[in-house]
Amino acid sequence: MVEKYTIRTDLAMEQKERFESDHVEVSGVVLEEEYDEEREIKITTVRIETENGAKMMGKPVGTYLTLEVPDMASADDGYHREISETLAGFLEKYVENEETKKEHSKEKGCSILTVGLGNREVTPDALGPYVVDQLNITRHMVQEYGRYGVEEESRIVSAIVPGVMAQTGMETAEIVQGVVKETKPDMILVIDALAARSSKRLNRTIQISDAGIHPGAGVGNHRSVITKETMGIPVIAIGVPTVVDAATIVNDTMENFIAALETSENLKGVGVVLQGYNSAEKYELVKELIAPHLNGMFVTPKDIDETIRRISYTVSEALNLLFSGKAGESEKKETA
Amino acid sequence: MVEKYTIRTDLAMEQKERFESDHVEVSGVVLEEEYDEEREIKITTVRIETENGAKMMGKPVGTYLTLEVPDMASADDGYHREISETLAGFLEKYVENEETKKEHSKEKGCSILTVGLGNREVTPDALGPYVVDQLNITRHMVQEYGRYGVEEESRIVSAIVPGVMAQTGMETAEIVQGVVKETKPDMILVIDALAARSSKRLNRTIQISDAGIHPGAGVGNHRSVITKETMGIPVIAIGVPTVVDAATIVNDTMENFIAALETSENLKGVGVVLQGYNSAEKYELVKELIAPHLNGMFVTPKDIDETIRRISYTVSEALNLLFSGKAGESEKKETA
Amino acid sequence: MVEKYTIRTDLAMEQKERFESDHVEVSGVVLEEEYDEEREIKITTVRIETENGAKMMGKPVGTYLTLEVPDMASADDGYHREISETLAGFLEKYVENEETKKEHSKEKGCSILTVGLGNREVTPDALGPYVVDQLNITRHMVQEYGRYGVEEESRIVSAIVPGVMAQTGMETAEIVQGVVKETKPDMILVIDALAARSSKRLNRTIQISDAGIHPGAGVGNHRSVITKETMGIPVIAIGVPTVVDAATIVNDTMENFIAALETSENLKGVGVVLQGYNSAEKYELVKELIAPHLNGMFVTPKDIDETIRRISYTVSEALNLLFSGKAGESEKKETA
Amino acid sequence: MVEKYTIRTDLAMEQKERFESDHVEVSGVVLEEEYDEEREIKITTVRIETENGAKMMGKPVGTYLTLEVPDMASADDGYHREISETLAGFLEKYVENEETKKEHSKEKGCSILTVGLGNREVTPDALGPYVVDQLNITRHMVQEYGRYGVEEESRIVSAIVPGVMAQTGMETAEIVQGVVKETKPDMILVIDALAARSSKRLNRTIQISDAGIHPGAGVGNHRSVITKETMGIPVIAIGVPTVVDAATIVNDTMENFIAALETSENLKGVGVVLQGYNSAEKYELVKELIAPHLNGMFVTPKDIDETIRRISYTVSEALNLLFSGKAGESEKKETA
Repeated sequence: MVEKYTIRTDLAMEQKERFESDHVEVSGVVLEEEYDEEREIKITTVRIETENGAKMMGKPVGTYLTLEVPDMASADDGYHREISETLAGFLEKYVENEETKKEHSKEKGCSILTVGLGNREVTPDALGPYVVDQLNITRHMVQEYGRYGVEEESRIVSAIVPGVMAQTGMETAEIVQGVVKETKPDMILVIDALAARSSKRLNRTIQISDAGIHPGAGVGNHRSVITKETMGIPVIAIGVPTVVDAATIVNDTMENFIAALETSENLKGVGVVLQGYNSAEKYELVKELIAPHLNGMFVTPKDIDETIRRISYTVSEALNLLFSGKAGESEKKETA
Repeated sequence: MVEKYTIRTDLAMEQKERFESDHVEVSGVVLEEEYDEEREIKITTVRIETENGAKMMGKPVGTYLTLEVPDMASADDGYHREISETLAGFLEKYVENEETKKEHSKEKGCSILTVGLGNREVTPDALGPYVVDQLNITRHMVQEYGRYGVEEESRIVSAIVPGVMAQTGMETAEIVQGVVKETKPDMILVIDALAARSSKRLNRTIQISDAGIHPGAGVGNHRSVITKETMGIPVIAIGVPTVVDAATIVNDTMENFIAALETSENLKGVGVVLQGYNSAEKYELVKELIAPHLNGMFVTPKDIDETIRRISYTVSEALNLLFSGKAGESEKKETA
Repeated sequence: MVEKYTIRTDLAMEQKERFESDHVEVSGVVLEEEYDEEREIKITTVRIETENGAKMMGKPVGTYLTLEVPDMASADDGYHREISETLAGFLEKYVENEETKKEHSKEKGCSILTVGLGNREVTPDALGPYVVDQLNITRHMVQEYGRYGVEEESRIVSAIVPGVMAQTGMETAEIVQGVVKETKPDMILVIDALAARSSKRLNRTIQISDAGIHPGAGVGNHRSVITKETMGIPVIAIGVPTVVDAATIVNDTMENFIAALETSENLKGVGVVLQGYNSAEKYELVKELIAPHLNGMFVTPKDIDETIRRISYTVSEALNLLFSGKAGESEKKETA
Repeated sequence: MVEKYTIRTDLAMEQKERFESDHVEVSGVVLEEEYDEEREIKITTVRIETENGAKMMGKPVGTYLTLEVPDMASADDGYHREISETLAGFLEKYVENEETKKEHSKEKGCSILTVGLGNREVTPDALGPYVVDQLNITRHMVQEYGRYGVEEESRIVSAIVPGVMAQTGMETAEIVQGVVKETKPDMILVIDALAARSSKRLNRTIQISDAGIHPGAGVGNHRSVITKETMGIPVIAIGVPTVVDAATIVNDTMENFIAALETSENLKGVGVVLQGYNSAEKYELVKELIAPHLNGMFVTPKDIDETIRRISYTVSEALNLLFSGKAGESEKKETA
């Protein structure tokens, strides 16, 4: 019953980490790590390659790329620009990869529907809407004036902030589905605020995935499935963890406590008893004690407003670079 | 070439008034007026019955009901509640009328998609989004728990704030169309901020129409067609004028000026000359002088923030009453 | 060292409760409870009467009145109006009490500066700003047109949303102090979002106190001292708990855990050991395990946006009733 | 009676222009113009040197520097950065000039209170609040950790968004006065949205003045006097025109109309009559025709939301550069 005992995280790399700390081998899941020293960005790639891997990880098959950026909430504009360029570079690869599969492969200019998931009125859930607010939208220009209405290499960009179910009464996926069918973009790009397992990862991690959005993800824990399968076109998801589930934080401390009991000189007696428990049994013990009203509650830092504002700038700058068709250029220059 | 010379208004009653002041008979258009003395609400009904009437009026065939409420921007809560009840009563008739055509005629409970048109970021255009923010949404409850998830007589309510084209790159009608196809409501209810011809009507008039939304309407002058024809289901539009086109205000003053010239003792000479001009020629004279950069500009009061806030309360309270299925009750009580 | 071991709460009644659960007598602190059955509101009054009581409670001398309202976040408008009337009734007593001490005792009309504390950009901290947004402000009318510029019994109301230190670089108290000196109100009324000890109290409790605002209180844990002593005029504080400190929630669960260990059949061994620990020692054990990065983090419900919106309506309606000078009337009618 | 006939503008350069078009010499007022070809920025300096000049201009003695930037509302980030640098360079001179008068002349680091005037809820009036939202505030860091809490050359920055009178019941000047007395900054920097005479200047002009804020200025036409005289410390005002008074636009078109009448072949007769009128008489004629309800109404473009967002970025970036103490550096580099 491994799944039951899974603590919630929307980051594939945290899920993988967990198995590693338990010394569990997960077949069908590949991990790669690299470090961009100059920019101080750690890049982790988790590839879930098989259905078994997907089942173990509790996440669909796909590639999950994570950038860890220690100072993402800081005020240094130059540094933010570097993160934006790095992020745009990775997104460019995903998008170019899809473009080469299409007929319009030679010219840039696939059309992208950007979806800002989350609730604009709840600060840590507002990342998606805030990012969309700052995008350079071009689809209506192209519709009106043709390809010449915009810069030469520019992609065709539309965007929607669908709201959350309590506001609309509809599944986000229903709204996006409808919009996709009417406006026929080539690709969907979803931005969402995520829940992390560790509060240390909050506001300093960006996950890019081609696996789309699956039920239970996001701050608001939405039930939407926005994937290539359901939408009929590729879905790239960009997520930043901004909250930790309240139950997760409690659980973490409890685990520390149990560990302490097991090793403490004074409390050896307890150690003896608890050593007889396996992980799942310990989790059951803990779960009973976590107050049920913690469901539907989240933990977030007090300065979340400033953090969300900065990160939304960084992500929107990356997207605007991607949309302009110039995302790969700085990189090319560097390599040259 | 009558249409060319039409000054813009989204209120059918203002359009009708204009013909009356020019002593033009418009066949196929019927006007009715009544006055609710107790509540100080003047009710004007304009019925455009023929295609000829529609052409003359520059508005589609349909019924346009206008409530004029002198103190709609005031702070008197009790009075606002009365307006809400009156508005809900009229909407109830429209909705009941559609419900009786359907199979589920006997039980209340048709499903209504509410659309808050306009731009949340431009104060006088934010009416639609603000109203939607305050609605009691129920569709997701009914989807989850069935009819018993909500109050007995409650209608099934969903809502969307689609944004404007500069934000989404899409026609509003495309978004609404997509959502309608996916979620299959029985009826659409659109809320929009309108442009009036006369600044005296700003923020004290509510228009209800079964003709939907047509191109060129609204503060942002959107190109959307959201009508029964395009959407396949009935569309009821609720609009409140919150701006006057800048060109309209200039034109009005100019007309006063020409009138003054024609009658003034001192300026008799001008009168002689201008008497030779007909209305269209005078309009041409004026039009040349109106600076072209006034296009895309609007006139609105400085206290528009407070006004929009109050009116959005009043309209949302009316809609929540309508959605609760109890809109007709106060009226029934009174008649009894 | 009792204080060290105090878990944070801004509610005097929770602090008192804690001593009771530990069977500690606190001299100089009086507790009264009553229950309004009709409106389902539980009213608790904590009176801190001596400096010793203040030291034990970690709160200044004063009266702390708490309304517990189980359904304060629900959508029932009628019920909200009842809460508003109850709240206004209590505030009326405080305000009248101060008015009778003044020369203008016979006429209503003392001047009140309302201060909306907190950060508008962080949802659970936005209560103060949201309440102020909806107040009927009159001071400028009276300044311009004299007493006849407003309704006869109306009080003179001004308001400010000072922002938080990260936004202004100033202590809130400095801003309020400056405004008080320039505009000379008779009284200050502060609205703030609070931290509770128990998540069960979130969004269903209102605390009214004549002790003002003291350091460490509020969601943002501000350092302001806004009291009669510092401001020179009476300060009434209205607070609603909207968050729980992350550390508090962890601690609560740990205490449950320890309690469970002590009573559990299977874990009796632990019980024996832990029985030797007193409260403070147990707290030390727990404190070490609570991750330090939980400082500056808070726990709040996912639907906090809707909750804050509703509660801000209820509180602002109460204040507008108070300001209109008609707060006592419904009560008088009832008694008559 | 020249003043009576003055059409409202908050831009000194427009006022000066007006006298020039009327061939009126205004003694005590000096005009200088230069053009930064590379950046396409026209710089106009109006120096009001005498009380007579001030009376004629309807503006206090002081220097009014205007940057005209044709593409200020466009999306080109690089260009915006150039405007920010130019603006920061001019502000640096004002601030340095004040700093050299003080004892702390040798080290940078005077303390600046930034005031974001205007109404956050009315889009074209929200410039000041939006700019303040994006500033790097440092005063609280310096208070807490001393000069070493911030970057070496950093100035000490505090900020306030006082709101407008309808929201606070207080004069903005009262609030600012109070804050100045409590927190004792060396200088005030005010940001405000202005009214222009010509709609062509909207959103493409920045005025910097050492004359402060005077009654009747700003979108909301506030009555505040925030000047060196009233505040006791230097006041630098930064303004961007975002609206035109409704009456101004009407008047402009009428003047065109009268001019057309005077020159038109067909309307010569009118010309003869109107030639007998002087400017003031013509203005009287026009004024009678301008509907009185246009008072309190303004004209603004439909895309004001995007425009305000971009300009607020540009201005806040300039201020953050100024505050960092590095505003002069790029310029120095260029000269070197």
